[in-house]
Amino acid sequence: MLKRFLPILDWGPSYSRDTFAADMIAAVIVTIMLIPQSLAYALLAGLPAEVGLYASIAPLLVYAVFGTSRALAVGPVAVASLMTAAAVGEVAAQGTPEYLGAAIVLAFLSGLMLLAMGVARLGFLAAFLSHPVISGFITASGLIIAASQIRHILGIRAEGHNLLDLVLSIFAHLGEVHLPTLLIGVGTTGFLFWARKRLRPFLVAKGVAPNLATILARTGPVLAVAATTILSASLAGLAALLGFDGSGIKVVGDVPSGLPLPALPPFDADLWARLAVPALLISVVGYVETISVAQTLAAKKRQRIDPDQELIALGGANLGAALSGGFPVTGGFARSVVNFDAGAETPAAGAYTAVLMALATLTLTPLLYFLPQATLAATIIVAVLSLVDLKALPRIYAYSRPDAAAMAATILVTLGLGVEKGILAGVSLSLMLHLYRSSRPHVAIVGQVPGTEHFRNVKRHTVVTAPDVVTIRVDESLYFANARFLEDVVQAEIAANPRLAHVVLMCPAVNEVDASAIESIEAINHRLKDGGVTLHLSEVKGPVMDRLARSPIPGELTGKVFLTQCDAMRALAPDLTARTLGETRRETSRAANGLQVPASVQFP
Amino acid sequence: MLKRFLPILDWGPSYSRDTFAADMIAAVIVTIMLIPQSLAYALLAGLPAEVGLYASIAPLLVYAVFGTSRALAVGPVAVASLMTAAAVGEVAAQGTPEYLGAAIVLAFLSGLMLLAMGVARLGFLAAFLSHPVISGFITASGLIIAASQIRHILGIRAEGHNLLDLVLSIFAHLGEVHLPTLLIGVGTTGFLFWARKRLRPFLVAKGVAPNLATILARTGPVLAVAATTILSASLAGLAALLGFDGSGIKVVGDVPSGLPLPALPPFDADLWARLAVPALLISVVGYVETISVAQTLAAKKRQRIDPDQELIALGGANLGAALSGGFPVTGGFARSVVNFDAGAETPAAGAYTAVLMALATLTLTPLLYFLPQATLAATIIVAVLSLVDLKALPRIYAYSRPDAAAMAATILVTLGLGVEKGILAGVSLSLMLHLYRSSRPHVAIVGQVPGTEHFRNVKRHTVVTAPDVVTIRVDESLYFANARFLEDVVQAEIAANPRLAHVVLMCPAVNEVDASAIESIEAINHRLKDGGVTLHLSEVKGPVMDRLARSPIPGELTGKVFLTQCDAMRALAPDLTARTLGETRRETSRAANGLQVPASVQFP
Repeated sequence: MLKRFLPILDWGPSYSRDTFAADMIAAVIVTIMLIPQSLAYALLAGLPAEVGLYASIAPLLVYAVFGTSRALAVGPVAVASLMTAAAVGEVAAQGTPEYLGAAIVLAFLSGLMLLAMGVARLGFLAAFLSHPVISGFITASGLIIAASQIRHILGIRAEGHNLLDLVLSIFAHLGEVHLPTLLIGVGTTGFLFWARKRLRPFLVAKGVAPNLATILARTGPVLAVAATTILSASLAGLAALLGFDGSGIKVVGDVPSGLPLPALPPFDADLWARLAVPALLISVVGYVETISVAQTLAAKKRQRIDPDQELIALGGANLGAALSGGFPVTGGFARSVVNFDAGAETPAAGAYTAVLMALATLTLTPLLYFLPQATLAATIIVAVLSLVDLKALPRIYAYSRPDAAAMAATILVTLGLGVEKGILAGVSLSLMLHLYRSSRPHVAIVGQVPGTEHFRNVKRHTVVTAPDVVTIRVDESLYFANARFLEDVVQAEIAANPRLAHVVLMCPAVNEVDASAIESIEAINHRLKDGGVTLHLSEVKGPVMDRLARSPIPGELTGKVFLTQCDAMRALAPDLTARTLGETRRETSRAANGLQVPASVQFP
Repeated sequence: MLKRFLPILDWGPSYSRDTFAADMIAAVIVTIMLIPQSLAYALLAGLPAEVGLYASIAPLLVYAVFGTSRALAVGPVAVASLMTAAAVGEVAAQGTPEYLGAAIVLAFLSGLMLLAMGVARLGFLAAFLSHPVISGFITASGLIIAASQIRHILGIRAEGHNLLDLVLSIFAHLGEVHLPTLLIGVGTTGFLFWARKRLRPFLVAKGVAPNLATILARTGPVLAVAATTILSASLAGLAALLGFDGSGIKVVGDVPSGLPLPALPPFDADLWARLAVPALLISVVGYVETISVAQTLAAKKRQRIDPDQELIALGGANLGAALSGGFPVTGGFARSVVNFDAGAETPAAGAYTAVLMALATLTLTPLLYFLPQATLAATIIVAVLSLVDLKALPRIYAYSRPDAAAMAATILVTLGLGVEKGILAGVSLSLMLHLYRSSRPHVAIVGQVPGTEHFRNVKRHTVVTAPDVVTIRVDESLYFANARFLEDVVQAEIAANPRLAHVVLMCPAVNEVDASAIESIEAINHRLKDGGVTLHLSEVKGPVMDRLARSPIPGELTGKVFLTQCDAMRALAPDLTARTLGETRRETSRAANGLQVPASVQFP
């Protein structure tokens, strides 16, 4: 029991020196990657750079204790940072203490919600986000993030939380482009794109061992940070020599070097209420991303992820972030893959990363003063453009138009109206499309394939039907979305066929019936009775039969429940069945002699 | 084509003198019932009495042209009137011209929405309202309506749109009870309850012919109206003689006697926006009630209802109400049953009712001056208490707890927070419960029943399984709600079984796969591949196979798609299958000799 809630008890006792070495190597590599990312995502969220560092310490320690994934690396990520900026920007002005306070509250609320969902085992709520919606949302977010960073590359002011506002604002300020910033920004972006694709092959070609090359290739951002910081510092020195007031390149500036003191977030009922929906969306989006990364990595080593425990661990990580002055965190995709590739064996690797990040926060911050914001913007652009997958749209369209529609709506609304409306539009549309599809399920009128006990669709097969019996097969669970549809279908059949005496509902594909469906079956039964027609059921599955047995149907049904459709036809159209089964002697004799009409199923 | 949109062309040409006679008799009886109801429901909606009369003329004419039900009687109904009062009370003060204007706008918006839904064939949206939610909503509405009328019976002032507010307000004003009003109110209520249950048996016992007795029994409300109006007029005369200022009994008062002039509702973007959601809820609730009454009556004569055309007809009826100064209308249950029982043959009966109501509006309104409001309140109470069905809750609980929970939530929220929040709470909860149920579908690990080609749940049957093959049968369509669940299930199996070499997904109950499920199958396939396990599918249905064929799965699947589960086991565990099928020689020889392993299904 304790092990379920504290997975550290699972792997901790058998922790060895070898595991320590493997975890520590992974931690060093992840830290090198995480320093520029944590600074960059804090700026993306509109927060001071040090908040990114704080969000990369406590959350990692908490996840190491509660997480079930051996390789997941939590911390600030691009999409959650964008969502934070959008949500917090609604309630406070960037740069104010209220803005930082609201970001901390957002992490706190998100942590509480995740924790509550984990304890109540409500992980299924993440199922509201279909794959096309989440994929469309991430693509659109990536485009917005990239657009929002262009101002830092150009050295201009531009604002907006959706693509149109951003692009218009960029064009409006295009006259203010700052040339040195532009050169650093474009140069860094170009280098990072090159490093991402070509650095490893380049190093291997130069004779570096492949494993080392893989690790060195990940150091691109850190190299860019170091080089441009030195360049920017030199330019500032040169400007000072020439008597100018700085180089004009926007830099990160003073970053406090101490560790954050634990503090409770400010309580303000109105603020909490306004941040509740954004916190829920950040929680669910972050959880979906986390769980899919964690499962992908766990499968490679045949390990198990507990989805409900992951909610608890991610909730704890966010509470950790909030109590140490950070902002919302989730599992990062690229970072976790690096952690896994670098050989992380246990969640302890995350704890070591946290310790290294704390050391960096204590010692390296003075060196970050001259780091150009354009470099961080370049880091973000290169990272998020890999998330943009516009080709998914035509790919999904090829096999599912409703899903493609939900994805397109998510992308367009996110780009045009912002992240929250985008995700809500996608979720609403996919729910409506799902209900639409299951409200009009595939329904077949079936007849008997001559000489067999098979019953197939009259439109697709040459089958025999009795003039006074119609058999309707519904290929879907019966529930509120299609209960009325079923009534319409039966109504149409009895209106079209004046000779009708029996209706059989054939239910092999019905996995579930809810109260609406039961009431519809009752209504159909009553209406058919009024019209002098008998209603029967056939091939009802066990769990469905159990539920029907507790409903009023057994007492009211005018007809019977048959184990098989063939039994139903033997009872309702014995002459016809005898003829069509002429080849199988045993059946013929049973039905034609009328001696032993098969018994119907008894309700338990 | 024209006939589809104008059902009158269907029955109009063959209209005969006999049909006219039958329709006219029904129209007279419905009119007698409708006069007090239309006045009462207008007062329930907080509107002047004549608005109820107006809403019983034009809408009936429009429905006669566009409706597909032969017996449906549209007009003001209790639940829609309550919803109108709740919605309009939010935007204007009762008794003001703005209040009436807002009620007309509500009818206009509702008409436009229903018409648009009909043209776009969006009738499936009504499926969002499950039976338990609508039933709970109507029960709660009936209780609120009855409580809201008690003030008229007591002759006191009391206000509130939910049960608690109403009851508290009634208690607060209990000292102001007006005795003559109370006597009329209680007397009328008692008489109407008696008339409803006992008048027909009483008349039959007195020697009245049963058919005539049925009709006479329906005249209870009109008798009560006549008797109490005369009483109230006499009391007023007596009071005048004695020098008092009226009798103190609240009466309907002046009712304008002209017909309404056609007029467009006032346009006010802000008002329309605020009434949009209430209009949608009234439309959907009204439509659901209408269609279920219409289908019940149509089935008795084996007639056909076109659900999408009913949207158009009901939309037209509401536009008619709005353009003639009325308020939202829907098909009434009791009224339609009376119309049907009285022998209405075509929608023309509704048109005749409209003509009779117009005549009544022109001639009878002066007689309504002294009609006590307590009489109308008694009419409403007796009508709505028949809608209250609290026993439905335990009945539904017996076979479906989630549905009972949704129903209970709808009742409690409607009673406590009002009609709009009640219905939204019910819809949200039933959607969440549906997703919850289908997000954790029944999943069985299956094995072969020895000596047969059947594969059943290992937990329920004595079956044979191969140590390196696991077969997972999912009893649900695969879509976004359960895609991740499937990933968890497979993950758990491979983590639990280190010898695993093959996973077979057995899909006989999968009626549908969406893009999320396809991406989950892809993810499972990749993860299993990383872990050295092959993924196969078996017993995939035709339409599902068609969709899979257009997806990336055929190119990526590490295993095969087998027509039957037995084929899969013959291919993956030939030795085992040979042994378990030992009794059926043909199968044994095929598999054991390894000569002819059954071919897998080819993607088309």
